[in-house]
Amino acid sequence: MEVEQMSHPERVFDATKARIVRVLKKTKKLGEDDPQRVIHSLKVGLALTLVSLLYYIRPVYDGFGVSTMWAVLTVIVVMEYSVGATIGKGLNRAFATLLGGSLGLGTHQLAELLGEKGEPVFLGVSVFLLASGATFSRFFPRIKARYDYGVTIFILTFSLVSMSSYRIEDIVELGHQRLSTVAIGVAMCLFVSMFICPVWAGGELQELVALNIEKLAAFLEGLSTSYFTENDGGGDVSKEKILLFQGYKSVLNSKSTEDALANFARWEPGHGRFQFKHPWNQYLKIGTLTRQCACHIETLHSVLNSDNQAQLDIDDNTRLVLYNLSSESGKALSELASSIRSMTVPSTMTSFASDVLGFTVAPDNLKAATVASLL
Amino acid sequence: MEVEQMSHPERVFDATKARIVRVLKKTKKLGEDDPQRVIHSLKVGLALTLVSLLYYIRPVYDGFGVSTMWAVLTVIVVMEYSVGATIGKGLNRAFATLLGGSLGLGTHQLAELLGEKGEPVFLGVSVFLLASGATFSRFFPRIKARYDYGVTIFILTFSLVSMSSYRIEDIVELGHQRLSTVAIGVAMCLFVSMFICPVWAGGELQELVALNIEKLAAFLEGLSTSYFTENDGGGDVSKEKILLFQGYKSVLNSKSTEDALANFARWEPGHGRFQFKHPWNQYLKIGTLTRQCACHIETLHSVLNSDNQAQLDIDDNTRLVLYNLSSESGKALSELASSIRSMTVPSTMTSFASDVLGFTVAPDNLKAATVASLL
Repeated sequence: MEVEQMSHPERVFDATKARIVRVLKKTKKLGEDDPQRVIHSLKVGLALTLVSLLYYIRPVYDGFGVSTMWAVLTVIVVMEYSVGATIGKGLNRAFATLLGGSLGLGTHQLAELLGEKGEPVFLGVSVFLLASGATFSRFFPRIKARYDYGVTIFILTFSLVSMSSYRIEDIVELGHQRLSTVAIGVAMCLFVSMFICPVWAGGELQELVALNIEKLAAFLEGLSTSYFTENDGGGDVSKEKILLFQGYKSVLNSKSTEDALANFARWEPGHGRFQFKHPWNQYLKIGTLTRQCACHIETLHSVLNSDNQAQLDIDDNTRLVLYNLSSESGKALSELASSIRSMTVPSTMTSFASDVLGFTVAPDNLKAATVASLL
Repeated sequence: MEVEQMSHPERVFDATKARIVRVLKKTKKLGEDDPQRVIHSLKVGLALTLVSLLYYIRPVYDGFGVSTMWAVLTVIVVMEYSVGATIGKGLNRAFATLLGGSLGLGTHQLAELLGEKGEPVFLGVSVFLLASGATFSRFFPRIKARYDYGVTIFILTFSLVSMSSYRIEDIVELGHQRLSTVAIGVAMCLFVSMFICPVWAGGELQELVALNIEKLAAFLEGLSTSYFTENDGGGDVSKEKILLFQGYKSVLNSKSTEDALANFARWEPGHGRFQFKHPWNQYLKIGTLTRQCACHIETLHSVLNSDNQAQLDIDDNTRLVLYNLSSESGKALSELASSIRSMTVPSTMTSFASDVLGFTVAPDNLKAATVASLL
């Protein structure tokens, strides 16, 4: 059937069908790329269904009343992909609710002393001052990184408690109910997040750092076999082959992901091979060095692919040196990556620097590889 | 007075005082670095105080009841630093509330047909399915970038409405009240954000892109004057001077900020010199090229600062060429930055490539500068 002969509704139907098929394929691919994504989605559904039991079980609902809502709300906003992110958000929410609620109640007590006319003015002024101050505190990088969500919830709870207190009689009872339901919600999230197929941000960080180093290794090893072993004059780079090893490009922009993962990892309790105060900062340092190395590779890549490149006139001896340099650097990086994964000291590493670069002392290996990648 | 002679409380007092002074100084610096931060904090306070009037004015509060809370809640979570981010979050919140609420009501109607026992089961299953599905949709990069917040609010509203409907009689009235109060909150945020000292994400993006290019220019110009004009043998790099021009380092990690700003800018209506469908993607492309250029500068910087660097043996002629190349590249980048700011085509640019690099055609200038920065 040709497209021209189709009626309008048929074409719309076909286009819609094609679109749906495309979205389904994409969905399938997303799920297959990382099955943990599907598991995470089901976990959110599960946590929410569990917390909804509070509504369906009569005696529980009678205890909390409309405050039950806060348990549901908490589960939805606190449940995050990794355990660390969930713990961070959960603790932020719980403590900020407690702090904001107490301060709100205190303000309410003070405001009541001022009589009916003074009360709204005093409440308004204190909400203005506290909200402005707390908002400004979010510009401090350290608060932004770890307590951003807590500050929001603090402003929220303080405002709601102090304002509601103007209209609602039994504000202490209400505050108590809310705090309990928020605590139930947080507990539910922590339980589901930690005990059902947990995703640890710490592990993700380690894997990301190792993977990034491996991407650089793949480039260097690919480069050595496809470029420095060719015998066609040297200047004539087979660009297609080099284009194959562009995995390193994603390394260049990995900083924000690494920073976020390290922030989450700091909230996580000890698990598996990681202890509570695992030195996550060291991973960030390795990450920085890896990106520096990726930068050098990017430059190397640009030189090799440059349009107005001067013909590289290298003889067979130099070619061999370059081949060794590139392939050994790649191997060294591969080994570094697997030693990061296995958390062991690489035994053969120390010989790399002296073998290839002629260094007399064994320096920081990644630095050596960085220097090597400069060729 | 010597430290040893101080009593314990005195020392604690002094340490606390020093700490407070440090925080105050930091606060002052944060405010002075960008006064817009102070203004933003005051704007949040203002929006919150305005919305709190809903509580203090009797007839208004009688109309909305406890739902007034949602207006306050909306203001606190929707109010963001830039106009674009506020609009994005506000629209996400408003439409997701509408959609989630309607679907929740529909589910409630269906559930009622199933009788008293079937209702909670049906509600539980639908909450589970919808929450899981919606959570999974957040893994699509495009949804993540623009509608992440909307998906959260959608799950939230759907769950709250469908669950509450099991316990609360007049759910339609309640839903109507909530939607109105959310709309009031969003309107308040948009008003304060757009009409009182607005911060446009689009303008911030343009400024960031231009500033990043200027940082590279500063490095290249600094390099030419401090390194290539010296007459002390060439190999003896004055490292201290080169360390001065490290502003370019922050350029390397600017991708996530640029992406976020471009996402916010897309929500913004036309303002000043920017129209509604301003090609924000072009800024991202320039940003990518700038980072590539920064990568080359990073490599250059490493080479100049390397410990085991071979002595560069360059004669005065080469030095002059390098001086010109570096300083002209710097100037060209400076000009590019100011032409991005003024949104004009740089007139003298086209001569740069042919003057300095001997190109016969004038290529993309930034690419030329990138090539030039490779030296």
